[in-house]
Amino acid sequence: MKILVMNGPNLNLLGEREPGIYGSESLASINERLAAEGKKLGAELDFFQSNHEGALIDKLHACRGVYQAVILNAGAYTHYSIAIRDAIAAIKLPVIEVHLSNIHSREEFRHTSVIAPVCVGQISGFGAYSYTLALYAALEVAG
Amino acid sequence: MKILVMNGPNLNLLGEREPGIYGSESLASINERLAAEGKKLGAELDFFQSNHEGALIDKLHACRGVYQAVILNAGAYTHYSIAIRDAIAAIKLPVIEVHLSNIHSREEFRHTSVIAPVCVGQISGFGAYSYTLALYAALEVAG
Amino acid sequence: MKILVMNGPNLNLLGEREPGIYGSESLASINERLAAEGKKLGAELDFFQSNHEGALIDKLHACRGVYQAVILNAGAYTHYSIAIRDAIAAIKLPVIEVHLSNIHSREEFRHTSVIAPVCVGQISGFGAYSYTLALYAALEVAG
Amino acid sequence: MKILVMNGPNLNLLGEREPGIYGSESLASINERLAAEGKKLGAELDFFQSNHEGALIDKLHACRGVYQAVILNAGAYTHYSIAIRDAIAAIKLPVIEVHLSNIHSREEFRHTSVIAPVCVGQISGFGAYSYTLALYAALEVAG
Amino acid sequence: MKILVMNGPNLNLLGEREPGIYGSESLASINERLAAEGKKLGAELDFFQSNHEGALIDKLHACRGVYQAVILNAGAYTHYSIAIRDAIAAIKLPVIEVHLSNIHSREEFRHTSVIAPVCVGQISGFGAYSYTLALYAALEVAG
Amino acid sequence: MKILVMNGPNLNLLGEREPGIYGSESLASINERLAAEGKKLGAELDFFQSNHEGALIDKLHACRGVYQAVILNAGAYTHYSIAIRDAIAAIKLPVIEVHLSNIHSREEFRHTSVIAPVCVGQISGFGAYSYTLALYAALEVAG
Amino acid sequence: MKILVMNGPNLNLLGEREPGIYGSESLASINERLAAEGKKLGAELDFFQSNHEGALIDKLHACRGVYQAVILNAGAYTHYSIAIRDAIAAIKLPVIEVHLSNIHSREEFRHTSVIAPVCVGQISGFGAYSYTLALYAALEVAG
Amino acid sequence: MKILVMNGPNLNLLGEREPGIYGSESLASINERLAAEGKKLGAELDFFQSNHEGALIDKLHACRGVYQAVILNAGAYTHYSIAIRDAIAAIKLPVIEVHLSNIHSREEFRHTSVIAPVCVGQISGFGAYSYTLALYAALEVAG
Amino acid sequence: MKILVMNGPNLNLLGEREPGIYGSESLASINERLAAEGKKLGAELDFFQSNHEGALIDKLHACRGVYQAVILNAGAYTHYSIAIRDAIAAIKLPVIEVHLSNIHSREEFRHTSVIAPVCVGQISGFGAYSYTLALYAALEVAG
Amino acid sequence: MKILVMNGPNLNLLGEREPGIYGSESLASINERLAAEGKKLGAELDFFQSNHEGALIDKLHACRGVYQAVILNAGAYTHYSIAIRDAIAAIKLPVIEVHLSNIHSREEFRHTSVIAPVCVGQISGFGAYSYTLALYAALEVAG
Amino acid sequence: MKILVMNGPNLNLLGEREPGIYGSESLASINERLAAEGKKLGAELDFFQSNHEGALIDKLHACRGVYQAVILNAGAYTHYSIAIRDAIAAIKLPVIEVHLSNIHSREEFRHTSVIAPVCVGQISGFGAYSYTLALYAALEVAG
Amino acid sequence: MKILVMNGPNLNLLGEREPGIYGSESLASINERLAAEGKKLGAELDFFQSNHEGALIDKLHACRGVYQAVILNAGAYTHYSIAIRDAIAAIKLPVIEVHLSNIHSREEFRHTSVIAPVCVGQISGFGAYSYTLALYAALEVAG
Repeated sequence: MKILVMNGPNLNLLGEREPGIYGSESLASINERLAAEGKKLGAELDFFQSNHEGALIDKLHACRGVYQAVILNAGAYTHYSIAIRDAIAAIKLPVIEVHLSNIHSREEFRHTSVIAPVCVGQISGFGAYSYTLALYAALEVAG
Repeated sequence: MKILVMNGPNLNLLGEREPGIYGSESLASINERLAAEGKKLGAELDFFQSNHEGALIDKLHACRGVYQAVILNAGAYTHYSIAIRDAIAAIKLPVIEVHLSNIHSREEFRHTSVIAPVCVGQISGFGAYSYTLALYAALEVAG
Repeated sequence: MKILVMNGPNLNLLGEREPGIYGSESLASINERLAAEGKKLGAELDFFQSNHEGALIDKLHACRGVYQAVILNAGAYTHYSIAIRDAIAAIKLPVIEVHLSNIHSREEFRHTSVIAPVCVGQISGFGAYSYTLALYAALEVAG
Repeated sequence: MKILVMNGPNLNLLGEREPGIYGSESLASINERLAAEGKKLGAELDFFQSNHEGALIDKLHACRGVYQAVILNAGAYTHYSIAIRDAIAAIKLPVIEVHLSNIHSREEFRHTSVIAPVCVGQISGFGAYSYTLALYAALEVAG
Repeated sequence: MKILVMNGPNLNLLGEREPGIYGSESLASINERLAAEGKKLGAELDFFQSNHEGALIDKLHACRGVYQAVILNAGAYTHYSIAIRDAIAAIKLPVIEVHLSNIHSREEFRHTSVIAPVCVGQISGFGAYSYTLALYAALEVAG
Repeated sequence: MKILVMNGPNLNLLGEREPGIYGSESLASINERLAAEGKKLGAELDFFQSNHEGALIDKLHACRGVYQAVILNAGAYTHYSIAIRDAIAAIKLPVIEVHLSNIHSREEFRHTSVIAPVCVGQISGFGAYSYTLALYAALEVAG
Repeated sequence: MKILVMNGPNLNLLGEREPGIYGSESLASINERLAAEGKKLGAELDFFQSNHEGALIDKLHACRGVYQAVILNAGAYTHYSIAIRDAIAAIKLPVIEVHLSNIHSREEFRHTSVIAPVCVGQISGFGAYSYTLALYAALEVAG
Repeated sequence: MKILVMNGPNLNLLGEREPGIYGSESLASINERLAAEGKKLGAELDFFQSNHEGALIDKLHACRGVYQAVILNAGAYTHYSIAIRDAIAAIKLPVIEVHLSNIHSREEFRHTSVIAPVCVGQISGFGAYSYTLALYAALEVAG
Repeated sequence: MKILVMNGPNLNLLGEREPGIYGSESLASINERLAAEGKKLGAELDFFQSNHEGALIDKLHACRGVYQAVILNAGAYTHYSIAIRDAIAAIKLPVIEVHLSNIHSREEFRHTSVIAPVCVGQISGFGAYSYTLALYAALEVAG
Repeated sequence: MKILVMNGPNLNLLGEREPGIYGSESLASINERLAAEGKKLGAELDFFQSNHEGALIDKLHACRGVYQAVILNAGAYTHYSIAIRDAIAAIKLPVIEVHLSNIHSREEFRHTSVIAPVCVGQISGFGAYSYTLALYAALEVAG
Repeated sequence: MKILVMNGPNLNLLGEREPGIYGSESLASINERLAAEGKKLGAELDFFQSNHEGALIDKLHACRGVYQAVILNAGAYTHYSIAIRDAIAAIKLPVIEVHLSNIHSREEFRHTSVIAPVCVGQISGFGAYSYTLALYAALEVAG
Repeated sequence: MKILVMNGPNLNLLGEREPGIYGSESLASINERLAAEGKKLGAELDFFQSNHEGALIDKLHACRGVYQAVILNAGAYTHYSIAIRDAIAAIKLPVIEVHLSNIHSREEFRHTSVIAPVCVGQISGFGAYSYTLALYAALEVAG
């Protein structure tokens, strides 16, 4: 099984950016660990990060026929990108929504996820381990 | 007369994406039919599609001095891109807002168009034929 | 094909009323031009105007079995007449919603159309030409 | 490590209640599978279900000194029980919020969780497998 | 046919509590009269009252297989108990919502019933006679 | 005793209009059955239907001195006609509000009844049987 | 000068309807007194009352070329009839808005007047004397 | 009879301040004309203007036992001074609320008058003539 | 005089629970001190604590004929239990609302007390001393 | 210890103003009784009343270095004077918020206190006795 | 050129009041430095501070014919004084709005400035240096 | 010191776009003047403009270690780009928010800046001179 792990805006700064909220591990390190875990479970993982809403949409479109599931941390776009929401709905692949921090205990405007209604489910608040949980979920859902 | 037909995010998937809502004809096919109809009426049509908000803005800027009118289906950006709204207001060309589905009978958040106040008018709900109506409207307005 | 063109409150004053917003052509003149265009396209058009919400509802009921489509400019009733909305939903004929001005660029309370969710589609902002576009749409939809 | 799995109102009906939304597996069966998985990972699991808000609060209080983590599906109380929220905040144990269905894609009033801000994180939308993910999360957080 | 008449919080005080709003007849007396009327119409009635949200939910669950319909005055829980709402939806029995006073002409917060969307219908404002009407309705619906 | 049964907009289409929501029985048939039931109980019933808000108000005014109670299904006017509300308040006759469907489980805008605060009570959701219940209620209230 | 005094829904019941709010004088008596006062000041007054929104609109249209000013108590239509608002804006005659009671100290929904923004001014709260003040105002404005 | 004419903040600038909205006559000139009209009708008028909320309250208190009515243009304090509202309610004198411009056709925040519910009535939109109408009203109410 | 001191959900944890907000004294210790103070002032105090909404309602009902006043810290139920509100209104005993912390300076959702409108008064923000003040208030009100 | 008792707008009218709400005792009498009670408890009380927001702010500033606590009934300014709120926050003295009536059971706009978040606590609803309780609270807090 | 620097409520406490937010420099010191900078640039500066809304309005009126520009830190009045807003609009002098702290990153109620729409521009967040920037702006605008 | 001047969507059209609002000077000309002013003050300025949200985020990330401060006119993104907000918060450089027009006196939706809470301060309304003020501010803050 092939799974894509997508990260949205500012997640390239992981480890350097507000470590009190987002942890001190870099995205590369998280991805590496995740790839290893995937391999162990028989899944091949690819990774994509962009700060561009359009690039994320383009990539989601390109997932069809290549991946069986997508793990998506859409970062701040989570809260307003109806365009990404439409892309998820259009591609008809299971998309797992992931957040490092518990978005429900932060600022009011982070409580709403416009992509949640078209994702399979949401995992938030477990730091880098949220991705690992999402990997298990992806395997369960698309396995 | 030259008219640009612009399409925003996810409209490149037309025909494949939720055909119950958006119809089963591809964008290429719609454009072809539209170009033919334009030719018959003495209008030369160009086409542009992008999933990138910035690319749509760049293109709108580039319309000045080239096209006499723009037919725009801004897709999901319709509902939140104040930047595209500002671009439309800035270029001072007649822009016709088009939607395949009747946005007023869908989810609450699709009822609001932030670009509508700076467009000439809005046509929504007639499927691919919405574009044809928009072409007639463009010819009437800019003719 | 027979099509009814219905106009709601204050539209009998077209040409005399706030011409800056609604244009200077009278309703009679618009209707005449519309009838000619319809004839050319093989459609017989009838016309009805009333300032009475109840009369508009009665007429909508009477459309069943007589017309194949209705072109409706419900005027101010657009914004609050749930009774007209229910009438449209009840008769199961395709109804095309029309507005002379771009209702989305006027006062806040004109942005909402309570009849839009039960109409086929909406055309607004092209002045008297909105009716012509609606005629084309009606022929496409009911043709 | 000892972990308590708490279920709130109406979850005793799992398997019988709206299986389209909640799945067809009974709570007993889910718990059994969960206990087995816990054992494999070196965790002893206890289970508690009640339809009484007060009973859930009493039980949360009693968790102190007994369990290292709590997995909580508060059912409908999720959306309005500030009293349960206060109990979670008071006991200072890591509580993992779990939902079978994706609460963000259901009725508006289910989008808000008043307990989320005092839980470690939220897992929703993966059916019975949400509990398994929560178990992994509990082990990670409290391990 | 067996029908359960359930009453929620504070309804045990009927006759003593704000008689200007709720009338001066006790719940026992209403129930007695109701039982007699039921007997006449061939229905056996049971009665249950509790001030505990959880107890009402437990009882609703226990109705399955015993009663053919439930007459429910949920008292103040009407306005916020999503847990009771979920219980009603889960048991798949026809539930008739009843109120002594016209909840629509009292304080704003009493205008909303969170259980109404999952009940068959609502009868409110006819004092103790609301229960009699509900009995007739239950017989009609479940008869 | 004399009772008037009033029906508002679109209810003349009963039986033909969205039978999934409103049932398949015509208004004439409902009225006939209602008249018979009234006769049995010693009440003479008259019937009035109009799609005109003003006609309903005129009729309400004319009820004084003729009828002892009014059964009113105001249709869509229920949700916005403050004028009908004022008429009900002005005539000082007991008015029973009736709805075929459960208005509380339909679209958001149908949850609010502007006439409810000046009616005796509300009965909704029991189909054509709602009228029968209203007849019993009228006899109880005005008897 | 000719002035029309228009009264909307339920004002025909003046004197009989909730005299605590609206006073105990009939509309006929008020009009008579008003006509006399008008005569004294050199103004000829006509009177029109209807419960029909459409009839009020028709009459407003008919005022052009006949009256120099209109005194309008639109009753409950004040609060939602955008159609009457549009009629006032269309006829370009000075319209004086009048209310017997102080609408600002009554129910919340009576605080908003949708016709106020297109009237010259508003007089409310002085009982039948509000009309007299409106007469003076009309003479001042249109004199 | 003695009547006090009170004016609130910025009304001392009348004639100089935004004459398009407030007219070009000074407050002194308006007062003079008003005093003359009062004399003619047997009323002695005093005048008071202040930009200080507290001074207006002090003066309202001092009116008891001296004046039979107060004509009050509270200027911008109209929209938020609950303290002035309480003062009006406390002194139990008839207070007539006056505005030069039609506050209902200006910015949203000017549509609400927090003092209106405790005034006898409101007159707005007739320029300086609003005061004359208020004088007549005061004589009618307190006469 | 007999007074009941009732405490709602999570207040049994006082002293252990978030001492920064609620203080470090246990409920038992507060009650003891309160009983002593009561004795000194000639009042006999009883104490009741429960995390169950229904139990609090049952107890309130049982207060009639036994206590002359109730001191109530309803904890989190303060913010949503309309059922407790109704119980307070029903028993017609003076109830003094008490809070340890200043609920008006905490999270938004704690600013609203649904029980406040039916209590005599509210004392909040003085820590354990709030109860002492409430005792004095109870003696004053019911003394 | 020195304590200042401050009273805001309209409280100088106590005893004369709406005695049903505010009681029939004058402010002078309340203050006298309060001073005596203070003396007994070893506290020297000063009194200040003004209808001027600015004067209240000036006085609050002047409290620093003179008083150990302030008892403040800000009257209507409670609901909107952010300036008084800022003054309280700036002086860093304990301020006890007091209200004669239960502000939470009056008009909606009196439910919000903008000064509450910067006061130590709030006492409301016990009439003149609210001040006595506030005195005890001030001694406890600042003692 | 003459420029007035106005400061509103509580700004006289600068340096003593919450220095974490407002800095530790006194208003006198800021003004001194500002006067020196003004002199260097050829501008004569006057200074005015008051906690009284009315005094600020009086002073704004008195600016006409004396100053060419006003630098205004209206403190808390920024958020609700429509009276000061009207004064600014009335005097037709360029007014520069200044804030020490970034009002947009503080409490919700400080995000709105009712005076902003009638000021030339806004400078906020640069501490005492905000005034220096405002001085430059005043010179640019009125120079 | 090195400072980056960033401009967002549509600001490349400055001078051509709605000059009534944005002035008639081009961005190039503004930048040139700004660079000269910077040089005079010992600061080296770089410039960046893009219509792409993602490009602005990428550039903000790249500022770390290169610039000591950023002057940012985010154009329409100001009002909804939480992604840019997060980027500003992440890079921990002082960012000065700049607007040509007074955003607080324009359309409602332009009153809110989602980036303001993470910027040092905001300068708006002084046309091209806003940038010069921002330069001074940047030197003060980062100097």
